[in-house]
Amino acid sequence: MDPNRVLIFDTTLRDGEQSPGISLNTAEKLEIAHQLARLGVDVIEAGFPIASPGDFEAVRAIAREVEGPVVAGLARANAADIDRAWEAVRDAPRPRIHTFVSTSDIHIEHQMQNTREDVKGLARAAVAQARALCDDVEFSPMDATRSDARFTAEVCQIAIDEGATTINIPDTVGYTMPAEYTGFIERLYEHAPGLKDVVLSVHCHDDLGLAVANSFAGVLAGARQVECAVNGIGERAGNASLEEIVMLLRTRGDAVGGLHTGVRTTELARTSRLVSRLTGYVVQPNKAVVGRNAFAHESGIHQDGVLKERTTFEIMDARTIGLEANQIVLGKHSGRHALRQALEELGYRVEGQALNTAFARFKELADKKKQVTAMDLEALVTDELRQETGYALESFDVEASSARPPHATVAVRRPDGSTATGSFTGDGPVDAVFHAINAATGRDARLREYRVDAVSEGQDALGDVSVVLELEGHGASGQGVSTDIIEASARAYLRALRLAEQKVAAGERKPKPEVPEPLSAPAS
Amino acid sequence: MDPNRVLIFDTTLRDGEQSPGISLNTAEKLEIAHQLARLGVDVIEAGFPIASPGDFEAVRAIAREVEGPVVAGLARANAADIDRAWEAVRDAPRPRIHTFVSTSDIHIEHQMQNTREDVKGLARAAVAQARALCDDVEFSPMDATRSDARFTAEVCQIAIDEGATTINIPDTVGYTMPAEYTGFIERLYEHAPGLKDVVLSVHCHDDLGLAVANSFAGVLAGARQVECAVNGIGERAGNASLEEIVMLLRTRGDAVGGLHTGVRTTELARTSRLVSRLTGYVVQPNKAVVGRNAFAHESGIHQDGVLKERTTFEIMDARTIGLEANQIVLGKHSGRHALRQALEELGYRVEGQALNTAFARFKELADKKKQVTAMDLEALVTDELRQETGYALESFDVEASSARPPHATVAVRRPDGSTATGSFTGDGPVDAVFHAINAATGRDARLREYRVDAVSEGQDALGDVSVVLELEGHGASGQGVSTDIIEASARAYLRALRLAEQKVAAGERKPKPEVPEPLSAPAS
Repeated sequence: MDPNRVLIFDTTLRDGEQSPGISLNTAEKLEIAHQLARLGVDVIEAGFPIASPGDFEAVRAIAREVEGPVVAGLARANAADIDRAWEAVRDAPRPRIHTFVSTSDIHIEHQMQNTREDVKGLARAAVAQARALCDDVEFSPMDATRSDARFTAEVCQIAIDEGATTINIPDTVGYTMPAEYTGFIERLYEHAPGLKDVVLSVHCHDDLGLAVANSFAGVLAGARQVECAVNGIGERAGNASLEEIVMLLRTRGDAVGGLHTGVRTTELARTSRLVSRLTGYVVQPNKAVVGRNAFAHESGIHQDGVLKERTTFEIMDARTIGLEANQIVLGKHSGRHALRQALEELGYRVEGQALNTAFARFKELADKKKQVTAMDLEALVTDELRQETGYALESFDVEASSARPPHATVAVRRPDGSTATGSFTGDGPVDAVFHAINAATGRDARLREYRVDAVSEGQDALGDVSVVLELEGHGASGQGVSTDIIEASARAYLRALRLAEQKVAAGERKPKPEVPEPLSAPAS
Repeated sequence: MDPNRVLIFDTTLRDGEQSPGISLNTAEKLEIAHQLARLGVDVIEAGFPIASPGDFEAVRAIAREVEGPVVAGLARANAADIDRAWEAVRDAPRPRIHTFVSTSDIHIEHQMQNTREDVKGLARAAVAQARALCDDVEFSPMDATRSDARFTAEVCQIAIDEGATTINIPDTVGYTMPAEYTGFIERLYEHAPGLKDVVLSVHCHDDLGLAVANSFAGVLAGARQVECAVNGIGERAGNASLEEIVMLLRTRGDAVGGLHTGVRTTELARTSRLVSRLTGYVVQPNKAVVGRNAFAHESGIHQDGVLKERTTFEIMDARTIGLEANQIVLGKHSGRHALRQALEELGYRVEGQALNTAFARFKELADKKKQVTAMDLEALVTDELRQETGYALESFDVEASSARPPHATVAVRRPDGSTATGSFTGDGPVDAVFHAINAATGRDARLREYRVDAVSEGQDALGDVSVVLELEGHGASGQGVSTDIIEASARAYLRALRLAEQKVAAGERKPKPEVPEPLSAPAS
């Protein structure tokens, strides 16, 4: 293996998906996983199989379908977790079990109510069990950066002795600083002699804005795997941003001995958009690499220097991250074949009934918009992925006026095929529609969050609506896309409502399996 | 002066305001500057006075009105810029002139079409002129991190010899890495002996996600001023985030010799919301410190560890950044006195006619919402700040239905007091409203961006709409707040339209004064 190659371990679907308000279904997770494979990440952490039947199913589907990357499943250091993780990933061509246990005294005492000796025993047993099932085993001492370095080294050495092939050092609470992290890793190398023979990995959180810098410091100290997430999503302030660490190594790798990754950077922009759309997590305009303005000089700002010589104010070329890839433009006369071809160029294989549906929606859109761009198509296709929810919006009628309170009537087709209507007079047209849907479905869902973004520029842009609602204590999110903001809002609400109903029916309240350790914020 | 005190130089109103799509008026800039003073920053870079009459006026107003921080104005290294900057800041109790010139060969050759000798001459003359006007002079060698260290040191020494009191080392293009930046600064100290007698400053951009880490490396190497912006806004991927660098020093300062700032961290959350609302720049949920989920454990996520012991997964307390300050709740029976008191607690002095207007809008809102929270009041007050635009929405009528295309009618009061109406049938209700406004005003404005956020949680939340439009090549943005998304959209559009008209009338196309060097992306 090339000693300068840094492996990219993507945890968008595990740590990222643990973010509040995100709940992806299996189809959405598969779509992201396929895109991660196109992007060329080395490892996909597909989920935490024991967390829920839905998590398990999604990890297994990714293990079976997605080609290229290693597929990892997370497991706490206990037999049930590890068995379940193995069951989920075993069908992957290259499966990995990732197991973890805390090594910090604060976690050992307060959270696990345990001792250091217990932790050593848990790590030993977990790695031994995992290794008996799977050749590729990763071990993480959780909260490593707040742990005693010698004790952490001892636990890591135990994991290595039991056969762990990757040792990951998480900065679980986003507390460390570059020099401190470097020093910690140096001490681990000193006290865990086996570390030099396995892959060292870093997993940093961004609570103090240092996730990328700490990850980079780890790489300079010898790590050759970086755990990161698209758009930097994840617990609290999230993980290191995949796109930032990748472009940092691409742009400055030569200055640090030729470090590089295997990522196809031209897929970065699209991956970012896909994840943002499916999670409902907006990317701020000034976000590095993938923010709308990260390359603002490219998109219309008159910049004397850049016009004279691009490199005066630019260190990266927008084309490198795939921002020029939006040149596909279809119009109202484009046919089914052109649509399929355009979708294929975008990496979507759409055929049969799915193509018919996509074509119908495309025609509808092309009637309203003069030009349908690649970004519009992406939005439509990802919108279609969410179609199997059970509720459908049959019709709606909304009046909003400064003269009287807004009024809405909706007709909704229920999962059983019957139609129900509801009306409401609310504070705003969207509020009225949501209450009318509640009336039609007989549900008392409450809106928690609401957001609208335009998919592309211009007066006739598609509106992309994200909704988070709560039903009987269960939160769920939904998205909807349309040129009509009311219609998009209603679709998003119906999807979220259906998901919430399913959660209520399953009695599922994530995280809550009957196992000894807590489930949220694991490993990392 | 305490050797461990790190000065916070806020450039939200200068580098931040240069971001595409942001255009704040003087009232908005003043409101942000007052909040920055409450936050306790040491220096406010209030703008770039020569860039436009509007910039000049805003800097002068801040210099005259805002108490506490040093008020700085930016100037390129030429006589006209420096005179204009001085004119703008001279009435401040503590004025500063900040002048800059590029030292990198790539800028000298391609952008300035100049020589290194010329640069030395420009720096010498500029600092001498500025120092003759003002005791507090900051000098920046632009694009320092891509410059030859010895030459940069030579230019800095010239500036120091001419009387510069602060030397700022910008990573203009966001290119450097922590260790490299440290090394560069060490070489400057070595070759510019005078540097140890002035304040060294850092100014880092986030193109590779390292702005905070590089700033921190600079501080560890001896810098005692950090240039940063609220929410990390600024050119391209923006500047170092003020809130991140401040909370990093607060949380980990003890580990690095007791470094600290004078910032009142409990004002951070509110400052972030104010800047986000007035600029229209959303903060992503996973943004460190001020993102909605940065403290997600506090806001409802069941977290076994945190419940047992907060510090198991939290390194900062949400109260530290002012997230608990939203406890003011008013209802429909609250009177004018209660409102004024609540606004005062929030830091707004509202009296006379402004109080009447605020009270009327509060009553209107309280009729629709059971509880009016501190965040709602903030949104209303900042919305009122934008009231003086000239167009007013008199009435509107919108029908949206799945059966026929949406139709809108609006009546708009023009700046001269006359009323105009317009109608349109569009692709969506918002689209129809915007076209109806175009019809009423006789303008052919085109929508470029559109976004809606909920101010607070819940079905009856206020919607906060941001609009960017273009009129005859001039872009302008506007915001509007209402429980009715259509009404908020119309208000936002009218404001943006008025601003665009004013820009068209002024023939102002930022940046474009008749001066030798380019105006955008200065200093930094």
